[in-house]
This record gives sequence, C-alpha cells and structure tokens, in this order.
Amino acid sequence: MIKVGIVGGTGYTGVELLRLLAQHPLAELRAITSRADAGTPVSSMFASLRGQIGLCFTHPDETHLEQCDLVFFATPNGIAMQQARALLDAGVRVIDLAADFRIRDVAVWEKWYGMSHACPDMVAEAVYGLPEMNRDQIRQARLVANPGCYPTAVQLGFLPLLEAGLVDVSGLIADAKSGVSGAGRKAEVGFLFSEASDNFRAYGVAGHRHLPEILQGLARVAQQEICLTFVPHLSPMNRGIHATLYARLRQDADLQALFERRYGNEAFVDVLPAGSHPETRSVRGANCCRIAVHRPQQGNTVVVLAVIDNLVKGAAGQAVQNMNLMFGLPETTALTGVPLLP
Amino acid sequence: MIKVGIVGGTGYTGVELLRLLAQHPLAELRAITSRADAGTPVSSMFASLRGQIGLCFTHPDETHLEQCDLVFFATPNGIAMQQARALLDAGVRVIDLAADFRIRDVAVWEKWYGMSHACPDMVAEAVYGLPEMNRDQIRQARLVANPGCYPTAVQLGFLPLLEAGLVDVSGLIADAKSGVSGAGRKAEVGFLFSEASDNFRAYGVAGHRHLPEILQGLARVAQQEICLTFVPHLSPMNRGIHATLYARLRQDADLQALFERRYGNEAFVDVLPAGSHPETRSVRGANCCRIAVHRPQQGNTVVVLAVIDNLVKGAAGQAVQNMNLMFGLPETTALTGVPLLP
Amino acid sequence: MIKVGIVGGTGYTGVELLRLLAQHPLAELRAITSRADAGTPVSSMFASLRGQIGLCFTHPDETHLEQCDLVFFATPNGIAMQQARALLDAGVRVIDLAADFRIRDVAVWEKWYGMSHACPDMVAEAVYGLPEMNRDQIRQARLVANPGCYPTAVQLGFLPLLEAGLVDVSGLIADAKSGVSGAGRKAEVGFLFSEASDNFRAYGVAGHRHLPEILQGLARVAQQEICLTFVPHLSPMNRGIHATLYARLRQDADLQALFERRYGNEAFVDVLPAGSHPETRSVRGANCCRIAVHRPQQGNTVVVLAVIDNLVKGAAGQAVQNMNLMFGLPETTALTGVPLLP
Amino acid sequence: MIKVGIVGGTGYTGVELLRLLAQHPLAELRAITSRADAGTPVSSMFASLRGQIGLCFTHPDETHLEQCDLVFFATPNGIAMQQARALLDAGVRVIDLAADFRIRDVAVWEKWYGMSHACPDMVAEAVYGLPEMNRDQIRQARLVANPGCYPTAVQLGFLPLLEAGLVDVSGLIADAKSGVSGAGRKAEVGFLFSEASDNFRAYGVAGHRHLPEILQGLARVAQQEICLTFVPHLSPMNRGIHATLYARLRQDADLQALFERRYGNEAFVDVLPAGSHPETRSVRGANCCRIAVHRPQQGNTVVVLAVIDNLVKGAAGQAVQNMNLMFGLPETTALTGVPLLP
Repeated sequence: MIKVGIVGGTGYTGVELLRLLAQHPLAELRAITSRADAGTPVSSMFASLRGQIGLCFTHPDETHLEQCDLVFFATPNGIAMQQARALLDAGVRVIDLAADFRIRDVAVWEKWYGMSHACPDMVAEAVYGLPEMNRDQIRQARLVANPGCYPTAVQLGFLPLLEAGLVDVSGLIADAKSGVSGAGRKAEVGFLFSEASDNFRAYGVAGHRHLPEILQGLARVAQQEICLTFVPHLSPMNRGIHATLYARLRQDADLQALFERRYGNEAFVDVLPAGSHPETRSVRGANCCRIAVHRPQQGNTVVVLAVIDNLVKGAAGQAVQNMNLMFGLPETTALTGVPLLP
Repeated sequence: MIKVGIVGGTGYTGVELLRLLAQHPLAELRAITSRADAGTPVSSMFASLRGQIGLCFTHPDETHLEQCDLVFFATPNGIAMQQARALLDAGVRVIDLAADFRIRDVAVWEKWYGMSHACPDMVAEAVYGLPEMNRDQIRQARLVANPGCYPTAVQLGFLPLLEAGLVDVSGLIADAKSGVSGAGRKAEVGFLFSEASDNFRAYGVAGHRHLPEILQGLARVAQQEICLTFVPHLSPMNRGIHATLYARLRQDADLQALFERRYGNEAFVDVLPAGSHPETRSVRGANCCRIAVHRPQQGNTVVVLAVIDNLVKGAAGQAVQNMNLMFGLPETTALTGVPLLP
Repeated sequence: MIKVGIVGGTGYTGVELLRLLAQHPLAELRAITSRADAGTPVSSMFASLRGQIGLCFTHPDETHLEQCDLVFFATPNGIAMQQARALLDAGVRVIDLAADFRIRDVAVWEKWYGMSHACPDMVAEAVYGLPEMNRDQIRQARLVANPGCYPTAVQLGFLPLLEAGLVDVSGLIADAKSGVSGAGRKAEVGFLFSEASDNFRAYGVAGHRHLPEILQGLARVAQQEICLTFVPHLSPMNRGIHATLYARLRQDADLQALFERRYGNEAFVDVLPAGSHPETRSVRGANCCRIAVHRPQQGNTVVVLAVIDNLVKGAAGQAVQNMNLMFGLPETTALTGVPLLP
Repeated sequence: MIKVGIVGGTGYTGVELLRLLAQHPLAELRAITSRADAGTPVSSMFASLRGQIGLCFTHPDETHLEQCDLVFFATPNGIAMQQARALLDAGVRVIDLAADFRIRDVAVWEKWYGMSHACPDMVAEAVYGLPEMNRDQIRQARLVANPGCYPTAVQLGFLPLLEAGLVDVSGLIADAKSGVSGAGRKAEVGFLFSEASDNFRAYGVAGHRHLPEILQGLARVAQQEICLTFVPHLSPMNRGIHATLYARLRQDADLQALFERRYGNEAFVDVLPAGSHPETRSVRGANCCRIAVHRPQQGNTVVVLAVIDNLVKGAAGQAVQNMNLMFGLPETTALTGVPLLP
C-alpha cells in the first residue's frame, strides 16, 4: 500500500482527491491536514464522504507527513514550495496540484503569481504532470507539478496540430469556458449562486495565470515561440471545461486521422467521430478528455473542441494518474469510474 | 457471471443502470433493447458510456432475452406486464423499474394508471423491492417490483415512526421535491430547460400515482389504514429527491435513537447526527438515503428529512441492490461508489 | 416628487429597490449610502443600472438623509433601529426592509435576533407593512416594518383560512422553498454556486427568525395563539419563494370562493383557478403573490400554494407599495411591470 | 394607437413580444393567432401575463389581421413568406422575427433553410432590421426582417472595426454562447433541463443558419467579402448571448475611443469602460447590447465581448424598436425597462 498524505483538503480539488483515493485499492490515506479545521472529521465537512473516509483533519504542525510515501498538495499557490524540500529530503514524493512548480522560468512565475519563489532551484527538478506529453519523466519524478485545468484541455487539444507542424503558431486562439467549481471553495461574492447562475461572462481577458503555463507547454511541443490569445469564461455549471480552439492551417491534412493516431493509445483521451460536439457532462466525474476536430466549410481554420471535468482530468484525477505512474501501477487504477450522466 | 438483459434502455433509469452494471464484477450485460433505436450503439446515444458499453440497442423481437438470467425493465408503465410471464416461464428473473407490479390491489392500480392490467395473477407473486422492508422475500423472488423514487424516500423516512407506533397516522404529510430527471427523458415542453430552470412548482396535488404506492407500504407497516397528504414539487436540479415529512407524535420518544437503531445495520440508509439537514448532493450518484429527524421547539410535530438520488436509490441502484439479493451476492456489490460532490 | 434616500444599497434588496425606483414617476432618488463603497458609482457595482442611476454611494456620515421625505433601510438587522429616531424627529418617514421593527414583543425579538433593541419604545409605533392586512395603518404610518419574504408568502396563504376560522390552528405547517438570493449578497461558502446548484436542502428546522414574525401575524388574524411548524428550504434558483401550506379543516367550505372573495380587490394577490399550481417564475420580477388552494382527495387537509418573488413582493416591491400608500399615491405606481418569463 | 397583430405567439419570442407590448403606451394588441391553441386565453398558457393580456389565441383563418396596422410574425421559418404579400397589399406593415426575409440572395437562403422561397421578389423590398446599421431604411419600410439573435450580437461587436477598416477580414472568429431559450419552446430531448443543465457544448460547427446572415451584414459594412468562423455554443442559462469576437489588427488604433464614438448616440448599445467584462445578466430583460473591447498583451489580436438578451435585443425588443421607427415613435418607447439582476 502507498501511504498517502494530503495537505489542504478542504477545497474542491481536495474533496475530489478524497473521493478518488477512497476507491483506490493500493492507496492508504494516512493524513489530511487543515490549519483551520484541525480536529473536524472529514466526513462532517463533506457528507458525501460519510462512511468512506474515517480521518479527521489534523494540524500541519502535528502531522508526520514525512512518514508518507506520497504527499499531495491541494493548497493555494505558494504553500507547496515552502514544504516540498523537507518532504523530498525525507524521501517522500510530492504532487503539487497548485501552480508552484509549473513554470520553469522563475521570473515569469513570480510576475504572474505576485510572490517570490521559495525554492527556485527545485523548479528545474519538477516534472510537468501531463502524462500524454511527459509520461516517461513522470515515472521517474520525485516532484510533479500537476497541470492547471485550462492548460490540460488547451494543450491536449492543440498537441497533435503542433506536433505535426500543421498550423500557424503566431495566431492561436483558445476560447475556454469553465464551470464555477474552477474558482474553488472560497467565500467570494462573484461566485455566489445569485451572481453566477443564469449568467455568462468572460474574465481575465487582459491576462490569466494559465496563459504562461499554456505558452510554455505549447512552445515546447512546437519547438518555437507561439502566440496565443486565451479568453476564459465562467459558465453557470458546476463542473466542466469546454475549450474551443482555433488555428490557421498551413497545409492540408487528414485531421481526424491525425488526432486518432496521436491519442489511439491514450486511456484518458477520447477522440470522437468526425462531426461530433463533445459535451462537458459526458466526462462528469471521469478522468477523461473528449476531443473533436472540425474544419468548417473546408476553410483554412481548424476548430478543436476539447472537454474535461476540471476537478478530475483538470486536477485530482490527473494527480492520481501521475501517482499511478510514479509508483509503477497501472495508469488507470482507480480512474475507471463511468461519468455521471445526467 | 449473471447474464443480464435490459428492456428499454434509452431513458435516464436505463443509462443509470448501464453505468452501474458496467462496473458490476459479476454481471455480464448481454442485450439491451430499444424499438426505436435498434442498431444504434449505446455509446453513441450516451457519450458517457464510450469505452464502457460495447453493445448496440437491438429490436425486442430479435433479442433472445430468455437466454438471460435476469431482465430489467426500464420501460414506461405497461410494458413489463406484457412480457414478464414468458420470461419467468423461461426461468428468467425479472426486475421491473416501472410500476406494473407495485400495487397489490389491481383495481387501484388500474384506476391510477388508466389501463387494464395484463396479468393480474402475477401481481400477487411480485415482491415489492424495498430491501429495508422486504429483504428476505426479495432474496426468494422471481419477480421484483422496484419501488418508485418518491415512495422510496417517503417510506424510508416514515418507517421507524410507524413501526414504533409513535405517530398519528390519520394526518401524515409528505412534502417532496424532485429533480427534473425524475420526469424522464421524454420530449415535453414542461421539462425544457427554459421552463424548469430558475423555477419551482408543485404538481399533482390532486393526486399523484405514487400516492397509492406509499399508502400501501405505510399501511402494511402501521398495520392499519393511514391517511397521507402527498405534495410533489419540481425543483430546478438534475438529480435528487428531498422528502420533508411531518407527523404528530402520540407519545414522547428518543427519535434519534429510534432511527439509528432501525437503520444501524443498513448499508444504504445513513442516519445523520441530531440537528442535521441532509442535502441531495450528498447522495448524488450513490445508492444511499440520508435521513435526519427533528422535533422543532420540542413540540408534538416530528419532521423527518430524507434525501436520495432519484436515479440510484430511487431507481437503478435499488434495482441492482435487488439483483444482488436475488442472486446471493453481497448486497453492496457495485454500489459502493462515492457520491459526486460538488 | 418624493425625495428618497436609501441606506445600504449594495445588497440584492438594495439593487432591486433601485430598479423599481428608477422607474417610479414620483420618486426622486437623492442619496444612497454605503460605508464600504462610498465614492463608487452605483452603476459600476451593478452594470444593470448603467444609464439608469447616476448616483454614487456616499458615506452615511456625509449624507443628509434628513433632507429626504422617505428613507429606506436595505441594511442588515440592527442598523435601522439606531438611526430611525433621528430621521423621524427630522420629519422623515422610514421603511425598514430588515427585521428591526417587525416583532412587537421586544423580548422575543431580542431572543431571536441575538441583540438588544436600541429603541424598544419605537417598536410600538411601527406599522407592520403587509398592505393586504394593514392598509389603513400603513397610510398613516411614519415608520413601517417591511415584512420578511417567507412571512409575506406564508401569511398571505393562510390569511383567508384563519380569518374565516376554518382550520385547526394548533397544527399548521408551512413548508417553504426559497431561491438563493434570499440569503443576500454576502460572501459565504454555503451560498456559492458550487454549493447551492444542483442541490436541495432544508435549513433552520430547529427554528428560523421568520417563525416568530409569522406566528405574530397569524395569531393576530386568528385572535388566538397558533402553533406552526415552519421548515424553510434552499432551492437552486435565483429568485422566488414557494410556500406549501397545510392545515386541517374544521368544517366544510368553498375554499376557492373564499380565497377569490378575500383577494378580489387586491392588485397584488392573484388567486388562480381551481386545480392550478402556481410557479415561481410566473411572478419573477413582479410585485405579485399568486395563490392556489387545494383539498386533495376531498379529505380534511387543505393545501395552499403561494408564490412570490422574494426580492419584490417579499422585499423591495412591497416596500414601494408601502411608500405609495404612505404618500397617498396609487398603490400600483411603478409596480405594474410584467413578470419576466422565461 | 397602433393596431397590432401577432401571428404565432406561443413561443418564447411571442411571449416576450407580449410582455413588451403590454407596456407599450401606443400599441393596441388586437389579435394573436395560434392554429394549435385557438380559443385558449393567452394568460392561461403564460401565467405571467394574467391581468396583462385579456386576449385568447385565435385561429389564423378567422382572424382579420388585415385590419391591423402592423403584424409581427413570431413563427417558425417559412410562414411569414406565405402571408406577407396579402398583408402588405392590404396596407399592413410586417415585421418578421423569423428568417424568411433576412438573406438577400434567395439561392443562399434556400440552401441554408432547405425550402423554396414563396416570394423571392419581396426579399428585395425587405429591410434588414438592425437599427444601428439601417435606421433610415427601417423608418421607410413596409416589411422588416428582424435579425437573428447571434447576428445581432456578432454584427454589433464587429461593426466599428469593419467600418474603420482596422482588421483583417479574412480570418474573423465569432465564438458565441447562447442560453437555452434561443432554441425555442419546442419539445425536443436535447433541450430538456436534464440534458442542458450543468452541461456545455458547441453545436453546428460545420455550419449554422446564422452564418450567411452574419456574412451578408459584415460584407456590406466591410464592402468586401469576409471570411468568418462562427461557433455557437449552448450554455446552461435561460436568456443571454455572449459573443466573443476575435480579429487581427492591421494597424494601431484607439479601439476604446472608436467604439465609444461609433455608439455614442445609440440608446441601446452600451460601450463599457476599458478593461470591462460584460455579463449577460446585466442585460436580462432589456433591449440592450453591452460591449467591451480588449487588446490582450497589446498584441495584434483584438477581442470584442458583446452581450445581449437573445429574446429582447436579439428578438422581440429589437422588433419593437423597429416598430417604433416604422411608426415615427421615439425609438425607446416601451423599451426603457431596467434589466433584472440578480
């Protein structure tokens, strides 16, 4: 059994991680910390976990995370970077679901996240945890930076096109729509039901923190600088990201075959038949990205539609996928749940 | 392996049954029929089942259901009663998720359902499939009438009070609220998103088909006629039933202890701590009824709050629970999934 | 023109009051205060008011509310009671949309609201602003306590039955469902979209602050003490209250005629035809209570269904209705907008 | 008073038209036809109109629409073209809210709408009813083709850029999101609450009927052929369209000033301050398009965000605006209602 600890499990990625780990046959949850809620049974905060998780939240200072084999950070940005070194030094592997180790250029990270990085030297060691791009490195990693939700959908959607060099990378567009759980379980007026329901809006058009993460990943694939306009939107739904991606083709190609070939062996990327429109609910609760590729009116613009559950393939599910890889387990362990529809 | 067939799998109880059976280690789905959609792959109707269910819908006339061990009817009312006899005669067991065999008094059934019963003699054999009331008979049954969604929540909520003879049965009130999936996957204007969202309404106050089913069950428990006012409501949510039950106490009692004792050994009924308010999302996707019992201001009115997922404990999950009992499997097989929250 | 001031206009009742007053031909909005947002244009907080309201929020200490003819308090509980006396002394009339002056028994108020009352002597002067009960006193009032949202729906629903002495007042039940805007525009986790959507729950079963207010009103009508079980619920919708009321009949009566007679002259209470089920969206945005009365199976339980928009007839619209009465205007001035459906 | 008739008033644009006309001081609703619902009072189909609209639906064959001054067609495509000539010949003016007269090239229309046009010669006479483009012609028109909802938002958003010749018209992108009411009040499975809620999907990527309408309008403005990729999406909300528009700048410009100047005199187009993100609820129920223009990271891609209420500025409100223009009334008559928020 893999002894697992979680730091900060009171948010939505935390409770999702608990849901998945509760069903993992080879993971043993040893501790889950919360400064504010130490002493509270996990199942009294999340009634959905009654009978599933017997633990109480414990105070981080009184929790022996160094006795775990793996620690997940389901914390706000800036926490994992302060605790990762001690854990690694104690032989514990770390998966950070926040952004601390996602951006290799520390100056860029510090600009977008508005703080100094506590351990810039460890950023180089960290492996970006998108298995469909980095599977082999993840297998060897001690420290994995779990990707953001938007970056997962956007990168998986553009990947085959950029690898094949088919599109003009100077004018990529990612118009992405997220459910409200992506904003986390924080008390903020803007995400109240009465603000977010029956409403639709863009946000962060001037610049969103996931932009540099996407740029870094796509540039690596394209092996050149790319230029991307990224517009995130808030949609009145709980879970789900729908990325609508636009690129100009530089040459003709069988796009459907390209995508099917690229993802044919991937357990968690499903290329839909030509002409399809994936819906977010088709992946609700599942570690799956469904993709369709279109070329409207046979013009020179390719449109890729990619959907994920932001809390699963966009966060906790991908983290478990990374755990499975890091510990040599079958990659799909505990990740075969069927999406909940309707 | 139990060879399983499904008649009529294109509605919400059908797709939910498929979700659960896809994960059942001892069930082998052999056939799923649909007159209208014969030839269509199940997974092209429900993208959530891509990679999970390889079958196509087949025409009922060309499907050898008699080769199954068990057939589920996830059909409109009035279908199962026409096909059950032939299947039973062929040694197949049957679970009807519709109402054909729920009401023992055939005249009452015919009045509420507006049709003649095709096999009144078989009604007597059918076992009402609420395991928390009828577990032993279900184990022996060839033909199980799976309860309605409202009746499941209302009966589980009232059961301990009536068994203990604590309340005045001449004036019970069940104020129940259902998500829209309870109306099924039928094209009707009243259940369009633009009709049902941001809206709340009662319906069927003059009389709802689930009333005689509830009356029958509660009267059996109370061993006397009971009088119940049942008001169902439509709430703008997908899944979930919340039953708020009111009864007048005839004597003092420790209600919390009563409920905890009654359901202490039940895997799928969870009595919450005193003072709790169960929420429907805490059982989303799970075969679970969560219950809280209150006595406001220590008056003589007891208030019971009971929540279920109408498609799981209120339909497909309960059907699988019944299957497990009928075939001697552990009752919780394939029913241990954690609710999806948020 | 009536010179109007608003104290505390940044919540949902505040913005709704602004919406209605912006269209009132005889009201002139002079000032709107907000300690936290002084200096901010109202229309930059609420884009819906762009081009409609030119004012900025001002600091209460720098606002000459005593120059107004009427001041609305759209504040949390406990604010109006501190400022009302000075305004009344200056000849300004006051309508409090919060609870400070709703309960005549100050001890009861202090128990339920958990604070000492700042001006108990003024409670006696205050008129409870439910025009369908108190129209004449409201016309003469200097200080009006605008009713709560639940109390408006519940009292209007029970009123005809109690006035006629038709029901057993020892066992009334009010099962009420509210949209989330009823919780206000406060940053609280429980009312986030991801907590409240696709979910249904009761709350405050042990006791809700609107209970004593309802009891007081109904007792006055019934001219005796009454006993009521009140269970509020949160429904995943923006606006709307649906009250489902239950009472035992003590004698036979033509309930439909009773209700139609009682409300025949009321502009804002609409008795639906027999057999109807009012829906909350049918009053969305309008100062209207729609009511249906049922007697299921001709038994001795009467069921009343009453719907309002909690922000209009349950708050801001009723406040404008009271204003119209206090200033001798036609009661329907600025309140004739058609509900927004869908 | 303008005598008004409505053909086909049982859909969402119909009920919205009724809501607006009920409050129009110079319109007198004379008749509203519905083949299927003749004899039914309008207010028994739409309870929101109780006390507002006294008419019953009448059978088209028994309704003397030729006695009206103006007839609105709120019908499916293909109806108005069969009846318009007779009405025009009788001196009645016509506004078609469907698509029959929107496309000047009849062959293009017939291809996209899959039917033969009944009166191709009248297409040339029809005026495209987007007042911000065509105000003067609308004033003179006998026959107005009211624009589609998507085309209204997309054209208003691109208009200033194309008029100024600032962008590359060979690669425009319109990523548009609509509430479900845009699909109309038709019984279709895909628009059931349980299909559309908590879900997001694109549709019609291969080609949507609003594409040729947008292309026609933009080409006229740009005075050259344009190339547009248009991807509509369904968002789980009732009302609202959010268009996110992308174009490549060909030269530098003060975009904010450009938009403010272009729409400075428009009553129903509101250019938000730089850096804003309009939300659909800020126009809910109002005849208003709110627009923001962005240039992320000062790159060469301009992003325009435009929101409307699809049933108001995208349908019925715009139709009333056109009526006002055609009859010489102030353009804002009956269109000054404040948006409903929350």
